[in-house]
Amino acid sequence: MKNFMDKDFLLETETAKHLFHDYAEKMPLADYHCHLNPREIYEDRRFDDLVQVWLGGLENGVLAGDHYKWRMMRSHGIEEDYITGNKPAYERFLKLAEALEMAIGNPMYHWCHLELQFFFGVTEPLTSESAPRIWEHCNKLLREDPELTARGMIRKANVAFIGTTDDPIDTLEWHEKIEKDPTITCKVCPSFRPDKAVNLHKPGFADYIRKLGEVVGKELTCTKDVCEALAQRIRFFYEHGCRASDHGLDYVPFRIVSDAEADAVFSKAMNGEAVTAAEAEGYQTKVLLSCAKLYRELGIVMQLHYSCLRNTNARMFKLLGADAGFDTIAQNSCGNNIAAFLSAMDESGNCPKVILYSLNPVDNELLGSLIGSFQGTEVPGKIQHGSAWWFNDNKTGMEQQMISLANLGILGNFIGMLTDSRSFLSYTRHDYFRRILCNLVGNWVENGEYPNNDAALKKIVEGISFLNAKRYFDI
Amino acid sequence: MKNFMDKDFLLETETAKHLFHDYAEKMPLADYHCHLNPREIYEDRRFDDLVQVWLGGLENGVLAGDHYKWRMMRSHGIEEDYITGNKPAYERFLKLAEALEMAIGNPMYHWCHLELQFFFGVTEPLTSESAPRIWEHCNKLLREDPELTARGMIRKANVAFIGTTDDPIDTLEWHEKIEKDPTITCKVCPSFRPDKAVNLHKPGFADYIRKLGEVVGKELTCTKDVCEALAQRIRFFYEHGCRASDHGLDYVPFRIVSDAEADAVFSKAMNGEAVTAAEAEGYQTKVLLSCAKLYRELGIVMQLHYSCLRNTNARMFKLLGADAGFDTIAQNSCGNNIAAFLSAMDESGNCPKVILYSLNPVDNELLGSLIGSFQGTEVPGKIQHGSAWWFNDNKTGMEQQMISLANLGILGNFIGMLTDSRSFLSYTRHDYFRRILCNLVGNWVENGEYPNNDAALKKIVEGISFLNAKRYFDI
Amino acid sequence: MKNFMDKDFLLETETAKHLFHDYAEKMPLADYHCHLNPREIYEDRRFDDLVQVWLGGLENGVLAGDHYKWRMMRSHGIEEDYITGNKPAYERFLKLAEALEMAIGNPMYHWCHLELQFFFGVTEPLTSESAPRIWEHCNKLLREDPELTARGMIRKANVAFIGTTDDPIDTLEWHEKIEKDPTITCKVCPSFRPDKAVNLHKPGFADYIRKLGEVVGKELTCTKDVCEALAQRIRFFYEHGCRASDHGLDYVPFRIVSDAEADAVFSKAMNGEAVTAAEAEGYQTKVLLSCAKLYRELGIVMQLHYSCLRNTNARMFKLLGADAGFDTIAQNSCGNNIAAFLSAMDESGNCPKVILYSLNPVDNELLGSLIGSFQGTEVPGKIQHGSAWWFNDNKTGMEQQMISLANLGILGNFIGMLTDSRSFLSYTRHDYFRRILCNLVGNWVENGEYPNNDAALKKIVEGISFLNAKRYFDI
Repeated sequence: MKNFMDKDFLLETETAKHLFHDYAEKMPLADYHCHLNPREIYEDRRFDDLVQVWLGGLENGVLAGDHYKWRMMRSHGIEEDYITGNKPAYERFLKLAEALEMAIGNPMYHWCHLELQFFFGVTEPLTSESAPRIWEHCNKLLREDPELTARGMIRKANVAFIGTTDDPIDTLEWHEKIEKDPTITCKVCPSFRPDKAVNLHKPGFADYIRKLGEVVGKELTCTKDVCEALAQRIRFFYEHGCRASDHGLDYVPFRIVSDAEADAVFSKAMNGEAVTAAEAEGYQTKVLLSCAKLYRELGIVMQLHYSCLRNTNARMFKLLGADAGFDTIAQNSCGNNIAAFLSAMDESGNCPKVILYSLNPVDNELLGSLIGSFQGTEVPGKIQHGSAWWFNDNKTGMEQQMISLANLGILGNFIGMLTDSRSFLSYTRHDYFRRILCNLVGNWVENGEYPNNDAALKKIVEGISFLNAKRYFDI
Repeated sequence: MKNFMDKDFLLETETAKHLFHDYAEKMPLADYHCHLNPREIYEDRRFDDLVQVWLGGLENGVLAGDHYKWRMMRSHGIEEDYITGNKPAYERFLKLAEALEMAIGNPMYHWCHLELQFFFGVTEPLTSESAPRIWEHCNKLLREDPELTARGMIRKANVAFIGTTDDPIDTLEWHEKIEKDPTITCKVCPSFRPDKAVNLHKPGFADYIRKLGEVVGKELTCTKDVCEALAQRIRFFYEHGCRASDHGLDYVPFRIVSDAEADAVFSKAMNGEAVTAAEAEGYQTKVLLSCAKLYRELGIVMQLHYSCLRNTNARMFKLLGADAGFDTIAQNSCGNNIAAFLSAMDESGNCPKVILYSLNPVDNELLGSLIGSFQGTEVPGKIQHGSAWWFNDNKTGMEQQMISLANLGILGNFIGMLTDSRSFLSYTRHDYFRRILCNLVGNWVENGEYPNNDAALKKIVEGISFLNAKRYFDI
Repeated sequence: MKNFMDKDFLLETETAKHLFHDYAEKMPLADYHCHLNPREIYEDRRFDDLVQVWLGGLENGVLAGDHYKWRMMRSHGIEEDYITGNKPAYERFLKLAEALEMAIGNPMYHWCHLELQFFFGVTEPLTSESAPRIWEHCNKLLREDPELTARGMIRKANVAFIGTTDDPIDTLEWHEKIEKDPTITCKVCPSFRPDKAVNLHKPGFADYIRKLGEVVGKELTCTKDVCEALAQRIRFFYEHGCRASDHGLDYVPFRIVSDAEADAVFSKAMNGEAVTAAEAEGYQTKVLLSCAKLYRELGIVMQLHYSCLRNTNARMFKLLGADAGFDTIAQNSCGNNIAAFLSAMDESGNCPKVILYSLNPVDNELLGSLIGSFQGTEVPGKIQHGSAWWFNDNKTGMEQQMISLANLGILGNFIGMLTDSRSFLSYTRHDYFRRILCNLVGNWVENGEYPNNDAALKKIVEGISFLNAKRYFDI
């Protein structure tokens, strides 16, 4: 029996251990897609205790924290007051420990322990019994250890690049401050996420467009105006180091309509009239194609993620708002649209680097085959099948995504993992990913499926761990 | 090489063997979803021979038996006369043995041998060669052994709870007799399955509603009438120990319409006019929500299973009728409906305990993520991703369902296996499931993915084997 | 660590090695579905070099070659000139070697090396370093070795049957010549692929129908005319040894319309008017049912493959035309149609042997369950869940297809692998498949899941390797 989560965790062969410890583990990391708050980085935030950093709660009227952990606690029948509410921190921690112990096989179990090990030096499992000791130990470190502030954790985890997620109307003031601070050696760049300007059929669209108009100093009265305003903001982001955009879509739309048709629907939405998702597609397609063209020009990566059903629980949405752990994997039927969208960009010579992520793992093979039809010569792996994330960032999900990519494309050109996280402790998910990667590759080598050619294996493993992302995002 | 199906069958590690033999195997079992005939339990039926118990055939004008085995025989090119027809029992047995030998990797292969081992002490494989010996041996025991009657098998398999499947208009007379018989120590409770009252668009609806009206003593003239009649029958079932309902749906509908609209479609159906599945949705939604509300009030579990395409073979449907082994896995696009249905129940405070089963395993991750958005504090794991059953109750299917549930929720709160069976021998499927469970958990422990904490492992394994179902169904 | 791709490649247990080396490997092979050019067989074509045989290019104005390899090279960012273009052969080979080294886990990696081993005796891995040596070595053999002509490769690979893919209007002259040549001992039979006569909604339909009319000597003015013309050609193919038809469908249609309706749409298409896919369904259903009836009569197997999205990249389609590596896996929702189509054939007594393939592996379980509802007594496994091919012919895909088939049907009746290839070197894919099969079966036996009964295992393994296909196609 192997020891519980020791240094060779998930590394089943000697080859896997070698690849991980000698190559993967030593690489810096590029977390090109996350939700960290740049202000907290600049101000080098310190946390009160493990519950603040793990569960969070209301901060300045906004609910912030880790919805993965919230969901796990809800699945254990725990009252919401302990999860996102006002119960004492220590009681919340005990409840979390209780739920965690039943969550065998859940990546959360591993992430929590990887975080305890890496950041706090805790090697015993978290249980109801050990919880008091761990609570005291970690909180002391959180208060005192210079490596356990926001910046300290980034340094400790050897993070070379952070891509935050930012709204087009953001001032990027904190990114500016970070850029000017020579003591911050990690690149912290904004990512452009214009969902609110794309989702014409969703509540808040008209208000958002008016705000966007204010930011660019012009009333936006048609689709073209929106495209130009976004273009202006993309250039502004680009000047602040932006390497990537991020489009979160329920499904990928593709419908070619005339300008007049798109504008008619736009006006309807601006007048506060209800617009269906289908009606919005013409406008959305125009805006997405327009953004893509500029991404291509500036070398900005376009991330498209889809197949999410958001805010499914109406009662909890009213209580807690969005992003509180009530989104789920959706079914979709937009495979043809994605192909048509990529083809339209490619045909006009305006196809940027694109990363496709579906939240539904049944799309793995579809995406694996689809990317192969739209590659280009700009960079190996121009069109990427994105990493297994959110509901898929577990061992099964990561292995399946990598095996599908390996079967249908070139795994060696994969740009690897992202955290999508709101927490500074989450970098251990890159460690988790790298272990799974090295184990997969190690098994192939040990099973005679790939030569034991160390130079090639080093190139593959270091590439997927960091160097491919460095090349892809021009870090 | 391991021995063929010995006591450590499917248990690949020492931890797996320990968990199975010391914990799982010793638990009683709750078969909360099956199709046993309560009359046969009360009358303590004895079987003529292995073919009667394995293949069945026409009994009192009704075709009864194991459609899994029928399908396997058809897949071997065997004539229907040997499968469900009138050929001599021994000849049918020989044909079955012949097909079985080619069915490597099929769960039927394991179930048959587990049944031969556990109930008949037969340890040699069933082949054309061994068939004559096994036939003689088993038939003798079936005729003579006191443990090989209906009740004997239940005792031998340590069954603590049986949830049968019953129509709302059933008198439950056999359940009553069983309840009053102190020599039957296993709880045998009815489950409420009102499909015929829900499927307004299917043949026989109007006749069924008229019968339901007779049972409750009132002509049912509108949707509300049906809801009230079903409520009356739910209360009647509840008084007879009902713990669960069961809804078999082609797909989960969700459409909110006015009472008038629902009633118009109801009238159309009652007048014998054709109604499409889409037209039926408004009525169906009302009836399902109405039942759910009362389930919640009474603590009855709501089982929803969907994605089945029934009676696909028109020729054989005319010959043999329904449930003869001609249903298949369907595609579906009702993920959003399920979320909306759960949200509607939750928002009105009327969400009962719910188990969701899709017959299509591509829905595993969708369901795994969806249940996490609707949990409650009544019981850990209030909303369950149901066990892999029917076409999925094989090693692959069970592992995938449990891994998906572990990845996305809390496996430790899973209520475990059901047989969905018509046969008293099928309890060995719980044994099969428990082996797969213990092997999965054992592998995690041996691979350092979960601590070797015996108390926690015992709790998890005994929970999933029996204790969680006991808590969930309040047995 | 196992050696890289030695004689026990992919064979992890002693049982697997025994089954492969003693049974599977010795079987002849039936490649019942491929795209070889019968003329090249008759003329016993010799190849200039490894690039001609591996990558191909424009030949007589037609682009021919291996689109799997083209896709792999594109995924490495290589310019099209090296892939399908006019760059010098050796430079193209070096680019291929470079891409291949990063394609860890891709079946192409294994196929290339199996081909180098089996046909050329090359045992070292192909890398940028070894490429020059391998290039010289293989080209010399291609020019000189009598076993490395088209016929030589067929002999060397012990091919007993080749089913080519042929258009209904083909003269089959090369098949005739082959048939009359006593020195060719491998059976080379045409397969009937009438897609162009079925795809009424696609460009070129009207022209094709006029050509078909010319071939049968009658203007085709209605659906019935087309059915009769196809029937005439099916009989012509049958006289030339045809064992199978092949229908490539974006999705399986099923819509019953009147003759008048079908003919109206037919006339529309013949007049060059645009017809939607949905409009075409009625015509398509009639034509497919009509062909099926005759297939049944003549014992011809009906292959239906679907869920492909073709020519996704508009820019490259203009440059290179169809079949250039720009097709992808499609989503589909035609499960019900397939069931209805099979039921319609079965009900009228006109159901031929059918092989169902979906390009999307999410359909595995759906197909596995569906075939069980339509079996017949003509042959064990009359309705087959076809082999994992095209995007699925990798270790994962083959294992998943076989496990799904084993779980839901009778694996022992499976007719096994096909290459779908345009290359004479591709027979090693049968070797690849047989290794995966033997390893799967070997693991079951070694794990105690199936008895170590050598006679039964031999029957299963030899059956799936060759004998079942021999029986099924009446070779």
